Amino acid sequence: MEFTDLTRTRRSVHQYADTDIDDETLVAVFEDVRRTPSSFNLQPWEFLVVRGDDLERLRSVAYGQEHVTDAAAAVVVLGTLDPSDHAERVTTDLLEKGYLPDEAAAEARLDTVDGLADADDETRRVWTVQSCSLAAMTLMYAAWDRGIASCPMGGFDADALRSEFGVPDDYDPVLLVTLGYPAADAADIERDRKFRRDTEEVVHLDEFDPAARGPPADD
Amino acid sequence: MEFTDLTRTRRSVHQYADTDIDDETLVAVFEDVRRTPSSFNLQPWEFLVVRGDDLERLRSVAYGQEHVTDAAAAVVVLGTLDPSDHAERVTTDLLEKGYLPDEAAAEARLDTVDGLADADDETRRVWTVQSCSLAAMTLMYAAWDRGIASCPMGGFDADALRSEFGVPDDYDPVLLVTLGYPAADAADIERDRKFRRDTEEVVHLDEFDPAARGPPADD
Repeated sequence: MEFTDLTRTRRSVHQYADTDIDDETLVAVFEDVRRTPSSFNLQPWEFLVVRGDDLERLRSVAYGQEHVTDAAAAVVVLGTLDPSDHAERVTTDLLEKGYLPDEAAAEARLDTVDGLADADDETRRVWTVQSCSLAAMTLMYAAWDRGIASCPMGGFDADALRSEFGVPDDYDPVLLVTLGYPAADAADIERDRKFRRDTEEVVHLDEFDPAARGPPADD
Repeated sequence: MEFTDLTRTRRSVHQYADTDIDDETLVAVFEDVRRTPSSFNLQPWEFLVVRGDDLERLRSVAYGQEHVTDAAAAVVVLGTLDPSDHAERVTTDLLEKGYLPDEAAAEARLDTVDGLADADDETRRVWTVQSCSLAAMTLMYAAWDRGIASCPMGGFDADALRSEFGVPDDYDPVLLVTLGYPAADAADIERDRKFRRDTEEVVHLDEFDPAARGPPADD
């Protein structure tokens, strides 16, 4: 689909049809997702796809939200908290393809990543949340491009989720994204679109307006 | 452009043509961006668009990186650290359009947001980084859909940036995104695409593989 049509028609959907997503389609979605840019191209993401009866287990760590089990699948976007995980492969590649001029630059790049890996917990968490959220946005567009609706969810118990699905402590569950073909007459599609702040309110050309918190409610 | 073509051809570009982006095109890009989903639809983003001579000021707080001043514009994606900023407008809208069933549900929603606004610094920072990163990804696709290349940048001094551009402390500069039409023969487009981890490595169907940190370098 044309990208502008995607942004105009994508909705966060809670009502799904009772239709599975076949593996081929799921793989095609992630073929888009894996091309997402990331900090230093370190790709700190893993995607746990929960389906079938396992969705009940996911719902139990997501405050019982019904659309988790109504969905065909839910993707747990997991971010590694160790920036060095893929650093060697990524840096070797940058050197081989001419993105880095020489071995010294490659070593300097690895040193920078090592420094990041030694950073405090908050810094590493923000770091992984950032790149994984870029990937999550690609996931939602890539799904809708194939007719699969989604809903991003931040409401879950991260510790309980790790425990339930055997995820080590050094991964941050960044976001859940439910996926499914929308139900016929899905309310979230039939209803008027939710309010969005105007472009002129959120865009500050050349100068930041510190009084940008928006007008009083009249929309 | 078709979305899959966007993901296949979008590159992080450092070499830009000496061509301005007109205001109409910039507004069209943000008409896509503002439709990005966000936590509780709270849209915690502001976008400071830096152009012309001001790019030198931005470069000075971004460790002197040359592509900042080579770009036609750079967008500072700013995330509010106060989740309650737009809560009343957003909640009134959800009630009016039937996304919330009644006043009691709207009050409960506002209470939840108030709780988030009272959370510790790290929680609020992660919260705003997440939604603002979703918007940053839309920004990069929306730009490329109009032939404008981009490069996301996490390397800058956040305090110096706030000071230089008069941004209050309760906004987190989440990411810089340089924008510009690519230079003819831009190296970042001519070179082979950077390594991406395979779909089968990053996608975990039904079960998380704790040994997912990837194979040794051989790609």
